[in-house]
Amino acid sequence: MLHLHIALTVLDHAAVFVFAATGALAAARRQHDIVTFFFFAAITGVGGGTLRDLLMGAPVFWVQRPEYLVTCLVAAAAIWILGGGTFRERILIWLDALGLSAYSVMGAAKALTFGLSPVTAIVMGVLTATFGGVIRDVLDHQESVLLRREIYVTAALAGSVVFVALMLLHVQSTIAGAAGFTAALGLRSIAILYGASLPSFRSRADAPPPN
Amino acid sequence: MLHLHIALTVLDHAAVFVFAATGALAAARRQHDIVTFFFFAAITGVGGGTLRDLLMGAPVFWVQRPEYLVTCLVAAAAIWILGGGTFRERILIWLDALGLSAYSVMGAAKALTFGLSPVTAIVMGVLTATFGGVIRDVLDHQESVLLRREIYVTAALAGSVVFVALMLLHVQSTIAGAAGFTAALGLRSIAILYGASLPSFRSRADAPPPN
Amino acid sequence: MLHLHIALTVLDHAAVFVFAATGALAAARRQHDIVTFFFFAAITGVGGGTLRDLLMGAPVFWVQRPEYLVTCLVAAAAIWILGGGTFRERILIWLDALGLSAYSVMGAAKALTFGLSPVTAIVMGVLTATFGGVIRDVLDHQESVLLRREIYVTAALAGSVVFVALMLLHVQSTIAGAAGFTAALGLRSIAILYGASLPSFRSRADAPPPN
Repeated sequence: MLHLHIALTVLDHAAVFVFAATGALAAARRQHDIVTFFFFAAITGVGGGTLRDLLMGAPVFWVQRPEYLVTCLVAAAAIWILGGGTFRERILIWLDALGLSAYSVMGAAKALTFGLSPVTAIVMGVLTATFGGVIRDVLDHQESVLLRREIYVTAALAGSVVFVALMLLHVQSTIAGAAGFTAALGLRSIAILYGASLPSFRSRADAPPPN
Repeated sequence: MLHLHIALTVLDHAAVFVFAATGALAAARRQHDIVTFFFFAAITGVGGGTLRDLLMGAPVFWVQRPEYLVTCLVAAAAIWILGGGTFRERILIWLDALGLSAYSVMGAAKALTFGLSPVTAIVMGVLTATFGGVIRDVLDHQESVLLRREIYVTAALAGSVVFVALMLLHVQSTIAGAAGFTAALGLRSIAILYGASLPSFRSRADAPPPN
Repeated sequence: MLHLHIALTVLDHAAVFVFAATGALAAARRQHDIVTFFFFAAITGVGGGTLRDLLMGAPVFWVQRPEYLVTCLVAAAAIWILGGGTFRERILIWLDALGLSAYSVMGAAKALTFGLSPVTAIVMGVLTATFGGVIRDVLDHQESVLLRREIYVTAALAGSVVFVALMLLHVQSTIAGAAGFTAALGLRSIAILYGASLPSFRSRADAPPPN
């Protein structure tokens, strides 16, 4: 369990960092001032994990450990200094993919350490992975990333399912985590690079979708 | 109290089912893939009750009982298979009315079993009844159902008030629940069928409302 | 600590009142019915403090004390009767500034009484101060107040920082609170009156911001 704990802490900071960077990039698009910039970074960085902890009844992870806010601050400062330039949208989407993949494992892992059932752990993984981005998009008054017809939730689901399945099979937690991360990132990468998508709902008498 | 407990569990699943179906119908409108479809169904299905439990400091109801997620899965599968066709919007609005009515009783009932005051129980009923739809609309980047100038929150309020009042009068809980459900559904039906609305705010020097 | 407690309760009700009034003004703009009117007032009034309490793991402040809902009711009734007329937008923005300033102190103060670190207390102050308005704007399907390029989050930050710093220096809590409130309100007033803003993010290869 110690291994799992260390892996979790590293993944936690990594995921917070990349999601915070996507929040900062969204703020950059809006040309916000530096305080709002950090605010967006922090909310996006810790949003998914905050929801996970509230749902599980666990203490919210960053409230007792302000170092997570420092991680957000560093991510925001990096984006502020490096900027995004013309590649900004591409960088945002890839950082978001990294964060999604890390959280899909981490959310499920924390739920397992809390003794929740495998099904619930998978749901927690998906929620944790997707909600940072949802909160960022809602605050930014953009259409949520969920609404694009792309493999997104599915990638998070794949990461959580692979991780939880391997843990049930008593695979070492670091390996299970790496496998889950890879599954999520691989699937999301295919979606980004090739625009792949799953079969979507189409009813017989369908009008074209709104906008 | 056993009666109340059984009635609550049945109402709980029924409300989760119909709200999950409205979430799936919203996802159908967007032609989402099957995983996102279930994701929308689940969030809409359990959203209102989740907020209620968080506010009360109760364990979130579906976290320890994954069967609620199965209910969402079944609702999503039903919509996926049956589709909505040209009647989709009408079906969504009526399922939403059923969920609103069930939750207006159920939210208040759970608050009463937690020993909260009647006023707070009524507020919990209204919040539980309306927030599934609000979350669905926010995720879907639609104008919230709250913003339509229709009797909506009022129907939830009527259901909660009738139920709590009858419980205070020591009416049997099943009867109180049925009366509350009927009050909410009746009022909401009138609003849907006849476009009825309460007097709305109009100031003397009013500009027309935005968009 | 008793002083701090009384000051907190007064500030709490004052902040709830003014935020509830801004919620009611937003509802007035939409010409909502009287129940929805109160609903918007209540959610905006207690929203920021609710988030603060959930994050800290504290009992949500209004759940056990329905008098806060009465405060919201009074605020909503006042707006309903007095209306906003042509000055509505100006009134909303100034009430919002008052609420922001009060909450920036109050959020931090409650976090300190819970034994949280100064950094976390400041973050709680900022979150409490800004989230009532965010929730109001999200429900109202408006662009969030955060997205305007104005000193807003920064004013909340100033209030929290001044208050927490003075408390660390053992200044009497009432004075520390008044100083924090004044700092936040002063900064926000300058932003409203003179359109002042901090330096904003501009990358070298920037496209103009969206809409």
